[in-house]
Parts: sequence; C-alpha cells; structure tokens
Amino acid sequence: MTIKRIDHVAVVVENLAAALSVYRDALGLVVSKQETMPEQDVKMAFLPSGDSEIELLEPIHPDSGIGRYLARRGEGLHHICLEVDDLQATLAELKARGTQLIDETPRRGAYGQVAFIHPKGAHGVLIELLQRD
Amino acid sequence: MTIKRIDHVAVVVENLAAALSVYRDALGLVVSKQETMPEQDVKMAFLPSGDSEIELLEPIHPDSGIGRYLARRGEGLHHICLEVDDLQATLAELKARGTQLIDETPRRGAYGQVAFIHPKGAHGVLIELLQRD
Repeated sequence: MTIKRIDHVAVVVENLAAALSVYRDALGLVVSKQETMPEQDVKMAFLPSGDSEIELLEPIHPDSGIGRYLARRGEGLHHICLEVDDLQATLAELKARGTQLIDETPRRGAYGQVAFIHPKGAHGVLIELLQRD
Repeated sequence: MTIKRIDHVAVVVENLAAALSVYRDALGLVVSKQETMPEQDVKMAFLPSGDSEIELLEPIHPDSGIGRYLARRGEGLHHICLEVDDLQATLAELKARGTQLIDETPRRGAYGQVAFIHPKGAHGVLIELLQRD
C-alpha cells in the first residue's frame, strides 16, 4: 500500500468570495471548479497547484460540522487529504496499530472511497484518506 | 508570476519519533531526510508525497516560536509552503492589495528565498512562499 500524493489541503473560511481575493486574485491560483455541496453543508472552491489542490470551504449553516469548527477555531487549515492506492489495506494497518479513526470502514465520497483518521490518531491533524475510482 | 506547487505542509508535533510511528510506519510514507536545525529551534523529518512533502517539526526549546505555538495550540497543521517562480513579483502583488505579511522582503531560507504571509492576510493560514535557488 502506498500514499500517492497529497490530494488536497482544505481551508475553512468565513466567506469564499473574500478568500478568493487572496488565493486567486493576489496569489494567482486558478479556480478549476466552484460548487455548493448541500449534503456536506459547504460551498467549495478548488484551486489546483502542482499535483495537489487547495480547497476553500465556506460553511452554509453555522450548526454544521464545518460551521461549528469555524466558530470554535476560526478560519484556517482544516484537513489534508492523502490519496492512497489501497484504502482497505491502509485502514487495516492503522487499526492493527491502534490508531484512532473516525471511519473504521471506507465510505462513499464525491470522487471515490474515503475514510478519516481522527486528529488524536495523527498528532493533531485531521487526515482524509481517498482511494479514487 | 505563478504558484508552481504546494512545496510542503508542516505539522508541529511533540515528539518526532512518536509522530513517525504514524506517518512513516502506519501510513507508509518514506522519510527522505531527518535533521536538527538549531537556528530554527526544530528537529525535522521530511516525508515526500507526490510532488509535495509533509514536514514534521518538533521544537527543541519550549520558548521558541514553534515551542510556544505547540504550547498554545497543541499538535497539528502549522503552515503550508507554496513554491513560486518569482517571489518579488508575488510579494509586490500582495502588498499592492494590502495583504498582511510577516516578511515584506524575501529572506534567506534553507533552500532559497522565502517570505511568510501573516495568517491574518490569508484567512487563518500561515503561508510560506519559497523561490528555490
């Protein structure tokens, strides 16, 4: 099993338009896609950079997971996503070592199978593992 | 001026050896280099992944910048580094837009010229800009 790359770095922001004035207009990153995902309670902008991308997330509702995170911690880095070639094998290895997980088994994400490692299991970092379809 | 890639994502940890048991041993990332940088008050491990890398930082002294960050915020994501092709031009663009910077002019880093954007200027994210030699 292998980690292929950092698929994306996710940043929680209060207002997507305001954040784009820095990340797109000042830094010169290009927005490849912008969409609202009601089932995840976020508006998102995707800004590819090398073989990774920066994802900006604006919560739609203050009482969603991301909304509560913003209220508690403020704007900033939220999680990193690592693309793996074999999510089942990676989860089995993590479980065998007693790493604290949010998802014990893969679940369906927008682009493939995903599972999250709990920040307590990864030294304070919320890690999404993604096996693309 | 162009952002070429996410050069690295830096994670502050209490103990490098303990963090490597997750990032290297459980996740299967490879450590390309490990070194102590007394002038930055950190022990570091570099774990390449795709065209980026994850850098684990353990503070050497509790009263250093990274040491105080760890005491205040706990372990977790610390900053992202974006590789740029023209750091002077990127800084000029940021300054023209009034973005809050830590470094108004490039300074010498380990691998090239660097400058940091203040988290207040980038929606909560400490961003290092790097122009490699």
